[in-house]
Formats: sequence, C-alpha cells, structure tokens
Amino acid sequence: MDGETVGKLGEFGVIGRITKGLPLAPAVSVGPGDDAAVFLVNGSSVTSVDMLVEGVHFRRDWVPAEALGRRAVAVAAADIEAMGAYQLGLLVGLSVPEDIPVSWIDDLAKGIRAECDASGAALLGGDLTRSKDVVISVTVLGETRGAQPVLRSGARVGDVVAFRGRLGWSAGGLAVLSRGFRSPRALVEAYQSPQVPYGAGAEARLAGATSMIDVSDGLVADLGHIASESEVCIDIDTGRFDIPDPLHAVAAATGADPMHFILTGGEDHALVATFPLGSVPPEWQVIGVVTDGEAGVLVDGAPHSGAGGWDHFRR
Amino acid sequence: MDGETVGKLGEFGVIGRITKGLPLAPAVSVGPGDDAAVFLVNGSSVTSVDMLVEGVHFRRDWVPAEALGRRAVAVAAADIEAMGAYQLGLLVGLSVPEDIPVSWIDDLAKGIRAECDASGAALLGGDLTRSKDVVISVTVLGETRGAQPVLRSGARVGDVVAFRGRLGWSAGGLAVLSRGFRSPRALVEAYQSPQVPYGAGAEARLAGATSMIDVSDGLVADLGHIASESEVCIDIDTGRFDIPDPLHAVAAATGADPMHFILTGGEDHALVATFPLGSVPPEWQVIGVVTDGEAGVLVDGAPHSGAGGWDHFRR
Repeated sequence: MDGETVGKLGEFGVIGRITKGLPLAPAVSVGPGDDAAVFLVNGSSVTSVDMLVEGVHFRRDWVPAEALGRRAVAVAAADIEAMGAYQLGLLVGLSVPEDIPVSWIDDLAKGIRAECDASGAALLGGDLTRSKDVVISVTVLGETRGAQPVLRSGARVGDVVAFRGRLGWSAGGLAVLSRGFRSPRALVEAYQSPQVPYGAGAEARLAGATSMIDVSDGLVADLGHIASESEVCIDIDTGRFDIPDPLHAVAAATGADPMHFILTGGEDHALVATFPLGSVPPEWQVIGVVTDGEAGVLVDGAPHSGAGGWDHFRR
Repeated sequence: MDGETVGKLGEFGVIGRITKGLPLAPAVSVGPGDDAAVFLVNGSSVTSVDMLVEGVHFRRDWVPAEALGRRAVAVAAADIEAMGAYQLGLLVGLSVPEDIPVSWIDDLAKGIRAECDASGAALLGGDLTRSKDVVISVTVLGETRGAQPVLRSGARVGDVVAFRGRLGWSAGGLAVLSRGFRSPRALVEAYQSPQVPYGAGAEARLAGATSMIDVSDGLVADLGHIASESEVCIDIDTGRFDIPDPLHAVAAATGADPMHFILTGGEDHALVATFPLGSVPPEWQVIGVVTDGEAGVLVDGAPHSGAGGWDHFRR
C-alpha cells in the first residue's frame, strides 16, 4: 500500500481498514458498519464532543498521525473523567484531504485504538469525508453507573482545590516546537498527545469532590468556570506547585516564567477539583482554597494578569 | 449585533447565544455548559456521527445557514430512524472561519433547533472552534426502548423492498443550482435540507421490517449495503416508481432520465427497508423484491450501469 492515497482507495476501503478486526466490548451489540452503533449504558449516559482542526489545534509536521489519534481521543475522553464518570465508547468524525497517504490514516487509527485501550472506551463508529484541512471530531460516551456526576457548580467555601495530571507541559512543548527545537522531548510528546489521568475522575468523585473540570484552556481559565458556576472565589497558591524539570528548562531557554506555563497553558487535560478539607485523594496535589470573595480566580491573593487561557476566536 | 463577527464576539459569547433559553427534555439532567451532558436512556443506546464540510457537502451561497442547520441534524438523525430506534438527543461540533457573521451562526442555530424539534431530539452539547471552511459534525443519540434494532443484515429471500420519503429530489435540486437556476423551488429546498420521514423507522420495525437503511449515497448504492450484508439479491422494478412532477421538469430541462436521479441521487435520507410479503405499512411504496441471486442490486433484472452512488473520495 506504499504511496496509496485515501483518494485512490476510496471512502469504504479506508473505513474497512480502520474497523477491520476491531474488538467489541461486551456492552456493544452493534459496532461500526451499520447505520448506527447500539450499546448498553449502566446508569445515566454522559456525552461530549471535541473537534481538532489542522492549522488551529495542530500542524501535521509537529504531531505525527499516531500521536494525533491519541490526542483526539484523549481531549474528548477527559470530559468524561471531569464528570466523575466511566468511559464507555466513542465515535470519530474524520475529514481529510484526498491526497493524504493511507499510511497516515493507518497511523491515526492506530493511535485512536491505543488511546481507546488506555481509556477503556470502545470505538463505536465514525464518518469519513473529504476536506482541505484535516478535521477530527470525537464524541465520547460514558456512564455514571448510578452515581451523581460531579458538576462545575458544586464548589463550596472552605473546600480545597487540587489537581491530578500535568499542567503546562503541552504549552511548554508548543513553545519548544514554535522555536524550531525538538527537546525537551517529554514536553514535545506531551504537546503531541496529553496524558489524561484515566480513572482519576471517578477517584475524585468517590473521595467526595464537590466540583471538577479538566484543564483544556488553562488552569486559571478553567477554574474560572468553576468559580462562576459555583459563585465562589478560588485562590491559587503558587508556592504549592512543584515545577517539573522540563518546564524549568524550557522557561530558562525562552526567558519565560515557568509558572506562566502552569497557570495558563492548556491542552494537558489534567483534572482540577474542589474537595472538602481532609478529603483529597493521595495522588492529588492541593494548590488552593475556595473562599467567599467575589466570584473569580485569584493567584496568591491577587487578580491574575493576562488572559489566563484560550479562546478559539481570541488570540 | 449587525456586522458582528464570531472572531469579535469570542467562543464563549457565541456558545452562550446558541444555548440561551434552550429547553431541556425530561430525560436530560445536565444539558450544555458543563464538561459533558448527562441523560437517561430507555433501553439500549443508539449512536452515529455525520460530518458536513463546506465545499464538499454544501456551498454557503447555495444553502442558507438555517437550512444548513436543519440539514446537519437531519442527515444524522436519519441514521437513528434507519435502526428503527427513537430520537433522544444530539451534539454539534462546529468549526467556522473567524470572519463569519454572528447572524449566520444565529441562523444556523435556529435551523438546528427547528430540526431538533421536528425529530424529537434534544440539543445536548457541542464544541465550537475555528477553521478555514465551515465543518459541522453532528452526533445523534437514540434509544431502542427495549426493541431489537433493524440491521442491514436481516433481509430474506421472498421479502419485498419498500421506501418512505423522497428519492432524487436533493440530486435534482443540486442539478438545478449547478446550472445557475433557483427553481423548481421544491427541489432546491429539498437539496438545502432533506425531509426525513421521522417516526417511519419505528413504524417499519413495528411492521416487521427485516432490514433497513437510510438513502444517503443513492438508492442503488445503499441497497447494495443491505444486499451484501444480508447476502441476497435485490431487484428493483423501475415501473413501480411514481416520478414526481419537479423531477420530470428538471429531467426535461437537463436532458437527463428522471430515473437516474431516483436510482443514484443521495442526500434525501428516505428510508428503504425489506418486509415480509404482506407486512408493508400503508405509507411505504413497494419498489422491488429480495431474491436468491448473486448478492447485489439489479434494476429491472439487470445490473445497474454506472456508479450507483456517492463515495466521498471518488467523484
């Protein structure tokens, strides 16, 4: 198949390559190949969609296809975690230029399957079409198994704020690539596909988390959603953060403050949650408190200067 | 808001406009605005995704935003019908150029909501991002309410083939627009947004349909999926079709055979199903039989000449 393009192989040929030999989870009675997939849900159903657009979320020369497949699944699956729910399955809408090599699609599918395995979700179906730039739309489906989901609106004054996962790594990786470098390798790989702490959402819920969100736009921006939905003030203490070595390295090389990456860098999809005092699970790092001040986010007691996060239409 | 663009209003401003005042169905406990939506499913869950790409599936000057919103929902919702299932909800992934007017988004959202109302689905959530061309990805969710879904693989020798909905109208409308005309108006509107026969999927299942599909790529092409999955031969009798007046008109004007539109035109999302003899519901039109010939589709007993339908990577 060397040099074969999607345009030559055709829509149905490519879909066949992606779905061939796909294992079906016990809950799935109809997998890809019919008009729709059919599966059982334990408790309430939980769902969210995320789109990745070439030239906006990634460049093909900066993110290999397999890493991109992993990323597309991870960014969507993180939303199921952020509800404290369990991963069930996902659908992938994919549009690609017709001159894209079939080997690129194969690698993308390999990454999608690998991240499905990591998250515990089944690939339920998809759509494949043509476009000028690559667009990947992943819809994730989860289940509550009878538990109450953890919303953004439940933070209470006196709670502590804690996170699990990585903060600033993806932004650090992007800073590295933007300057034409390929190291620190750990940051570049974090940018290419984030490491979502699968299982940590349910872990936080079981520990009594009162609110939760995944950090997609940036820590300050995403805590801002919790603050406004919960009508509380969240005060982050920068002294609480351990700054990872690779972030020190990239900060030194770029003349930036490593805390800038941690506070405003998005796309790592760490989970950040509020817990009653004394309820924080061991692997979570406490970074602040919930107070009765004006609804919003403070950093070391003061308003954060700068945008704090990402808006797709405001650079 | 005259002249306001999405780029100026920002991602969260636009999302707020789309979701403001959105009614929530009783089954939905968490609607748009948190990390994910939460809702109850009666029976098994049924799901599918469809993408519409500007320049491939539509041109903005040929499809007004409101009709496009209706179309995006309709093409996806038709897959729930084709399983004989019930509409429940949907998610919309939308990427748009930053210079797009907010009024265009408002009209698109109006169309999405109108088609949600027509289909009985709730708008559960979405994602909004930036791209060069408009891309809309709709994931639909349905429920079986305890019934067995109708698959592509169940057609049996001796069944009759019947459809409900429209065939060839959308292709006729596209032929009209491609030649620079705007009438017959009924065809142009059918191209802009198809009229899915909501409820007909469950109707067919209750009548005993053995297999079913919605006509997205073209009648011959989509019956080909039933034929190959069911390992049967499907013989279509062209004498069975009533050719609608607007198709006569456009065929005469373009020098085409109106049966060409009916047999190969996609995107009307009629439902076509196989039924045991004597079980066809009144509003369904019988157009053929299932025989034990070689798996495939015959037209008046002979192989159909020509492609028969649409492949996104083969024009």
